[in-house]
Amino acid sequence: MRDLRVRWALEEAALPYRVESVPFGERKAEHFSHQPFGQVPWLTDGDISIFESGAILLHLGERSAALMPTDPRGRAETLEWLFAALNSVEMASLPWSIFQFSGLTGDAPGWKGLEAFLNSRLQHMESVLGGREWLAETFSIADILMADVLRLVDRFDGLAEYPACRGYVARATARPCFVKAHADQMAHFAAAD
Amino acid sequence: MRDLRVRWALEEAALPYRVESVPFGERKAEHFSHQPFGQVPWLTDGDISIFESGAILLHLGERSAALMPTDPRGRAETLEWLFAALNSVEMASLPWSIFQFSGLTGDAPGWKGLEAFLNSRLQHMESVLGGREWLAETFSIADILMADVLRLVDRFDGLAEYPACRGYVARATARPCFVKAHADQMAHFAAAD
Repeated sequence: MRDLRVRWALEEAALPYRVESVPFGERKAEHFSHQPFGQVPWLTDGDISIFESGAILLHLGERSAALMPTDPRGRAETLEWLFAALNSVEMASLPWSIFQFSGLTGDAPGWKGLEAFLNSRLQHMESVLGGREWLAETFSIADILMADVLRLVDRFDGLAEYPACRGYVARATARPCFVKAHADQMAHFAAAD
Repeated sequence: MRDLRVRWALEEAALPYRVESVPFGERKAEHFSHQPFGQVPWLTDGDISIFESGAILLHLGERSAALMPTDPRGRAETLEWLFAALNSVEMASLPWSIFQFSGLTGDAPGWKGLEAFLNSRLQHMESVLGGREWLAETFSIADILMADVLRLVDRFDGLAEYPACRGYVARATARPCFVKAHADQMAHFAAAD
């Protein structure tokens, strides 16, 4: 479902785009030529083909000031938070979500450790987000990634004790471009059924 | 130990640098102002302070063609593999390493799943690395990250069935700049003792 991040960014930048689906079954060689792990999404922009949602967002960020500040400090802030969303927060939230989804909570082996790891990251995010509207000086691709990562934690009620994180997710997902990207994604899946 | 990645990049780019340590005990407010999760490393470059090893490498990559090709295609390849090293490979290898380090292998709950997840990623990397010397057209920051990630898997003998991955790690860690960065890091820790 990581194509939502890419759709959202394209909407914020008002860049024209077209979404294509790939078969869910066996991956073809052509698919691996675009995405060596056989996953989605990838982006084709002219003669450039690029995979990994973080790399795609960065590629788009360089085409639009609506996605990344152009001054050196704002750019550095966007880069560090883009990586932090993936490596410091999603690295903790993804295994936590998989355990939640599988019902492996409570006394399940490993659960307490995963929960403590995620909570340590959320405590830091809570103090960061308590003091600012967006991660860099303006809304950026770092917010698209961080809000999408925290949104999935929120779905399993993992933000109950983190009001600043919840407020941030609410602020980000109330943006018209998120609303449109999300509705388009749902319609796309429904049509593919 | 992620400062090794930064040291290595600085050596490859022949950029002058100075390493400072922070106390291992309780983190001070000044530390959190540079790194909101209270971790290391961060980089100070003029009036820019930047954290997350991936973001630091990208920041350095933009200052040196020795770290990132400057043509659009080579740059896109570097970006996607930089993110792939962190999100598609390290996301699988980190929990695997933690279980290995803790002796939670064999019949330990969750181990089989972690092992299968990592192996699926290594199989894809094996076919990619069987056909090329470096991930982009020339050596880049993507190789610094990917080689460092795979090097830690190799330490627990996780690359036994992946000769192309092993060859790639050997190639990368034989580079004089890696050898120097690694020796300097060890000397730095020994001096801090």
